[in-house]
Amino acid sequence: MTDGHAEAGGAVPAYRRLEDHYRRIRALADAIGMLNWDRQVMMPAGGTETRSATMAALRVMRHQAANAPELEDLLARAGEEPLGHWQAANLAEMRRLHLHATALAEDLVDALSRATSRCETVWQERARPNAEFASVSEALSQVVALTREAADARAERLGTSPYDALLDAYEPGGRSGQIDTLFAELEPRLTALLDRVREDDGASAGHRVPAEHQRTLGLEVMRALGFDFRRGRLDVSVHPFSGGNPDDTRITTRYDPDDWSASLMAVIHETGHALYDQGLPVQWRFQPVGAPRGMVLHESQSLLLEMQVSRSRPFFTFLAPLLRAAFGVSGPAWEADALARAACRVCRGLIRVDADEVTYPFHVFLRYRLERALLSGELAVADLPDAWNDGIEEMLGIRPENDRDGCLQDIHWYAGAFGYFPTYAMGALAAAQLYAAARAELPGLDGQVARCDLGGLLGWLRTHVHARASVTSTDDILRAATGSGLGQEAFLAHLEARYLVEPGP
Amino acid sequence: MTDGHAEAGGAVPAYRRLEDHYRRIRALADAIGMLNWDRQVMMPAGGTETRSATMAALRVMRHQAANAPELEDLLARAGEEPLGHWQAANLAEMRRLHLHATALAEDLVDALSRATSRCETVWQERARPNAEFASVSEALSQVVALTREAADARAERLGTSPYDALLDAYEPGGRSGQIDTLFAELEPRLTALLDRVREDDGASAGHRVPAEHQRTLGLEVMRALGFDFRRGRLDVSVHPFSGGNPDDTRITTRYDPDDWSASLMAVIHETGHALYDQGLPVQWRFQPVGAPRGMVLHESQSLLLEMQVSRSRPFFTFLAPLLRAAFGVSGPAWEADALARAACRVCRGLIRVDADEVTYPFHVFLRYRLERALLSGELAVADLPDAWNDGIEEMLGIRPENDRDGCLQDIHWYAGAFGYFPTYAMGALAAAQLYAAARAELPGLDGQVARCDLGGLLGWLRTHVHARASVTSTDDILRAATGSGLGQEAFLAHLEARYLVEPGP
Repeated sequence: MTDGHAEAGGAVPAYRRLEDHYRRIRALADAIGMLNWDRQVMMPAGGTETRSATMAALRVMRHQAANAPELEDLLARAGEEPLGHWQAANLAEMRRLHLHATALAEDLVDALSRATSRCETVWQERARPNAEFASVSEALSQVVALTREAADARAERLGTSPYDALLDAYEPGGRSGQIDTLFAELEPRLTALLDRVREDDGASAGHRVPAEHQRTLGLEVMRALGFDFRRGRLDVSVHPFSGGNPDDTRITTRYDPDDWSASLMAVIHETGHALYDQGLPVQWRFQPVGAPRGMVLHESQSLLLEMQVSRSRPFFTFLAPLLRAAFGVSGPAWEADALARAACRVCRGLIRVDADEVTYPFHVFLRYRLERALLSGELAVADLPDAWNDGIEEMLGIRPENDRDGCLQDIHWYAGAFGYFPTYAMGALAAAQLYAAARAELPGLDGQVARCDLGGLLGWLRTHVHARASVTSTDDILRAATGSGLGQEAFLAHLEARYLVEPGP
Repeated sequence: MTDGHAEAGGAVPAYRRLEDHYRRIRALADAIGMLNWDRQVMMPAGGTETRSATMAALRVMRHQAANAPELEDLLARAGEEPLGHWQAANLAEMRRLHLHATALAEDLVDALSRATSRCETVWQERARPNAEFASVSEALSQVVALTREAADARAERLGTSPYDALLDAYEPGGRSGQIDTLFAELEPRLTALLDRVREDDGASAGHRVPAEHQRTLGLEVMRALGFDFRRGRLDVSVHPFSGGNPDDTRITTRYDPDDWSASLMAVIHETGHALYDQGLPVQWRFQPVGAPRGMVLHESQSLLLEMQVSRSRPFFTFLAPLLRAAFGVSGPAWEADALARAACRVCRGLIRVDADEVTYPFHVFLRYRLERALLSGELAVADLPDAWNDGIEEMLGIRPENDRDGCLQDIHWYAGAFGYFPTYAMGALAAAQLYAAARAELPGLDGQVARCDLGGLLGWLRTHVHARASVTSTDDILRAATGSGLGQEAFLAHLEARYLVEPGP
């Protein structure tokens, strides 16, 4: 980056004031993020009520700041000022954020907030534990109705379809037209591929590993993958996640003594997210243009590390001796080949978060189809369980015995997150595409992976993805890095190479 | 409490709006407090810059909220509304906070903030490590000059002397007239007492205790003292402190394997602070009247536990077997008598934070005298080192060899905290006075302490101190609890009983 703050020698008062304003919004977002991390990792149970009040108050302040009356005028005036490339991109991001922030009337924001909070509570306390969809049906109907209203309002401001307006909040510039095309090609080819894959629903070679040994191994692997511990931590939470800010990335995992692999893969997945954040450009830390581009690229960075790198045969050359030393084990099940095979089992299952990379996209296809039908009104909320069960059975040939294994398994819709699911599958496509390009450009990458010597790969990702932050679109970033926009060829080629032939020696 | 929110059936719009407003300020303060805890306990080094920016932004928001233009009118109108006892006290607290918040012109706040930040940095990075007062003299002069200006401005608003206006920010209602009287009586009597105490500068019976054993013991003692772990945590930081909020009290200690006693006493001291916070009235959590009364009572609660209870002979009846079991030790040095004697050594030393309870007040006398002289202009900053060294030599008969052991040892002045020091000694007096009253009212307290069965004592403190929060003044709270306002008799009687006779069998 040759341009930046330095270039603006002249007077750019409106733009400067906007930078100050969005720096304050960023500070609120950082505080909210850290308090959320603390709530999930450190906070004692008694702190819940006060923490909720504190975070709600900060969210109101962030909302007010994002809606500040002077922004409209400042955004217009800044457009007349001489701006460098990054500054112009920053202004464009501010405008996008402002459009989203001001699209909804205050009372709709309130109603939506109350409805999702209520629905989430019913889902969590009653519907999911009792596998009882009926108990949350009415609350979800309200959420859907209000979300539809919000989608319409956003769509009017953004000039998109209602669904795309929701998607845009998670994946800026993401459009369902592109997703439809991708998924329409991907689904039949993936179905054909799945029929040819040797499935294996056998359990892993069981070995009880105490949490502290798993933690030691996880830290060692994070370090080898390039995680900067001067700028981050590893902790424990109920659900693994990645949070914090680029100079203080907080990732978590959980330790099941009977499933060391799940914990390790969560660590690697979240490390991918963290490396993206740690690689964002320092000089744009507190500005919208310095933020990660969107959920597709974010998920691509976690999946590139988890699926492309860490489940590859070469990686197990590095990992196998580490594992044997850390766990004090030996034998054929702990050799690289056997471990790589175990890490790449394919099995048609009901639960998305447990799915392998071949069957995973089907879970997204179903959710994408259903959430659009719910929002358009084609599907009534009361009919969701049947539609879900029919859908998953049609695609994978298995049917949930109850709604906990069906439409109650994910929190997203009950928490009001519509338009999020497709980014998971798009992230997997982007990961494959980026990794294929990196392998083509970095000779000897497989050998480096076998030593976990990932400096070259990380440098490539830093240059082509991380350092570009939000200066341009996801598709432009992919195009510049890989020669084409988001597609499914690399992903399918990857699956075929990994799952249709036995791993090499 | 029989009155409270419930009583306000009628329309009290201005007062209600004030409650909402101060609830938001409280949320900001809570966020700042938690982020500060995180910075000292969890944050990796790389996060410093972003964290500073985030906390500075939140502080600006808090300052703006405390100065919001509508407050003046609301505070006036609320005074005309029908309010219950606690509500009226809450309004009085709001007015006090508003006076403090609005007393200083914006540019003075800025100048003071920049000057203290600069001075603190020079103190930390250069003056203190090199024992070089000259390097920070000019920066401190600026801080003193601006603090004098601020004191004048506050004094005009509060109608007090300039020094009292500074003191009032830490100890509401605290006045130097009262301190002068107390200290004038205390100093000669303490000097006389010190001459009669058998001093002992021998080292503790050394025993290396790994940090994890110290932590286990600390947690056990906290639990026995009544710390509610559903509403708090124990962690590690460079300097022990107590933070968080009443439902999530975060205390810290540090572990020196060669000094288990220092760590344990820090845990007990901070537990005293935490129990005060945990005992504040639930229904006033987010309002000014629900906050701890001030630094004198806060320090009294930590010192009551650390000095009055935990260094008493009965407490070691409880502690000795715990220690022997936790550390796997035995022998005469680990019997209750020997441990109690070791915990009550008196030694004239140069460093305040290492001082025993007999010599500690002298350190405060000196600082109180010097900070008033600095602010009044009687003492030039350049003459501070000599004045310090002369003063401590006169009182304790020892003289620092360099300024690191003299006027550079504490951060307070360099960080702009003038008017704070006297609260430490006043807290010790209040602790002795409260504990004497509790012993008189709770028959068998010594026996309960010997079992660490402190429910009775804690209940007494809850009723007489914690539950009263800021509904009335420190002196009123002490008067209601002990029969008289703050005095030195109980403290002197305590010291005489503990230090002029050998501990009993």
